[in-house]
Order: sequence, then structure tokens, then C-alpha cells
Amino acid sequence: MTDHNGGSESPELSLEFRPKFDMAGLVTAVVIENSTKDVLMVAHMNADAIAQTQSSGIAHFWSRSRQELWMKGGTSGNNLSVTEMRTDCDQDALLLYVDPAGPACHTGEHSCFYRIVSDGTLVRVKT
Amino acid sequence: MTDHNGGSESPELSLEFRPKFDMAGLVTAVVIENSTKDVLMVAHMNADAIAQTQSSGIAHFWSRSRQELWMKGGTSGNNLSVTEMRTDCDQDALLLYVDPAGPACHTGEHSCFYRIVSDGTLVRVKT
Repeated sequence: MTDHNGGSESPELSLEFRPKFDMAGLVTAVVIENSTKDVLMVAHMNADAIAQTQSSGIAHFWSRSRQELWMKGGTSGNNLSVTEMRTDCDQDALLLYVDPAGPACHTGEHSCFYRIVSDGTLVRVKT
Repeated sequence: MTDHNGGSESPELSLEFRPKFDMAGLVTAVVIENSTKDVLMVAHMNADAIAQTQSSGIAHFWSRSRQELWMKGGTSGNNLSVTEMRTDCDQDALLLYVDPAGPACHTGEHSCFYRIVSDGTLVRVKT
């Protein structure tokens, strides 16, 4: 591994979990299904969402539109059991490996990514 | 699919590609390796980065730190050939399926997500 930032305290080399929150206090969270490796959804987490997820084992996020902490599946029952969390090199994005209790998307789709971009239009993924 | 927003013009049902940019003019882009389904990196794209990616077939992003359009691999040669792009339900996140020319991470790692969060510390992924 090349050290571009120098020193053991760089976010790339550090073994200290120190999320790099943006100006809104958020990091990006990418949710991956354990059984398929499908990306189910992308959301955002603040420090509280990370702490709640770690303590409960159920994915919590920060809703930018509603400006509130949000447990996925709190209403629908389709929660996400988190088995592993990873961070990226600069610690501003997280992967959550999950076992979903049901469809991850609020539309009822398995994954939020059910459309392919093709020449400026969208084509539904064949399932 | 349940329609929570009503009407064919909702971003969830629309077959028109109309990215929902945030206040900085960006959407989140998640990069997935075709051969492994590994998430290689998370970055951001503005309208120009999307257009350049579509026209060239090589992933372009917007650097928030440098405030400039950025072709991944422009310096290192480790570019990302994009074979498919997907959008999520509300069109504020994209998946890029790619064939990488080399390590995706600037540290030299295959993926930027080479550390697991475990009890507040980080543990390197065994490869």
C-alpha cells in the first residue's frame, strides 16, 4: 500500500474508526445484501445513526428530507440486520453488509436500483 | 410495485433519466466491479461527469475537495471502463458497473473498502 498522506494518523492507514462527516454531519452508506452482493440502497448516516446501528445491529440512517433519525423497516417491518460494516480509505463512506427482512426499496422492489440508464432513458432491470 | 408518489411522472416510476442533484449539484456514485460484484469506491458526479462518462465510456467524477472534474485513472492509468449505469428509486444515486484497469483505490488497494469496523476500531480485510 502506498502512503500518500504520510504518518500513521492518516485516515487511509489508521486503525481508528473516525468517520469524516461532511458539512451536514453525514457519511454515505451503501447497503449490500450478504446472500447476493446486490447493492440494495444508498443512504446517509450521522454519528447517532452509526451508534444506533452498532448497538442494535439494525440499520439506522439519517433522513435528509425529513431531518430525522430513521430505522429502516420501522414502519414496513423490512429492516436490515447488519452483519458487517466497512469504511473506505478516507472514511467518508461506509458499506453495510446486511440480511434484509424484505424488499429494501419503499417501492416494493428488492433493490432501489431497478432501472438501467440507457441513452438518456431508463430500462427496467429484468428479474 | 407500489406507487407512493402517484402519477407516471414520479421519479420512482419514470423512465426518464432525470438525476436529482443535491444543493452542490451532485449525486452519489457507487462503483461495482463486474467480475466480483465488489464495491470498489464511492464518489460523486455532477451533470458534466455523467455526460463525460456516458460519451467516453470511462468513469468521470466531481472532486469535492479539488472542485474539479476528474477522470479516474487520468494520472495512474487505473481507469474504469463503464459497462452499465443504474439509478435508484429517487434518482439521487447511481451504480456504475465497471471493468477496472488496475487498483481502484489511490492507496493501491483493489477496493477503497479494505477495513472492517469492529468495536470502534478498524481491522484490515483478509485478502
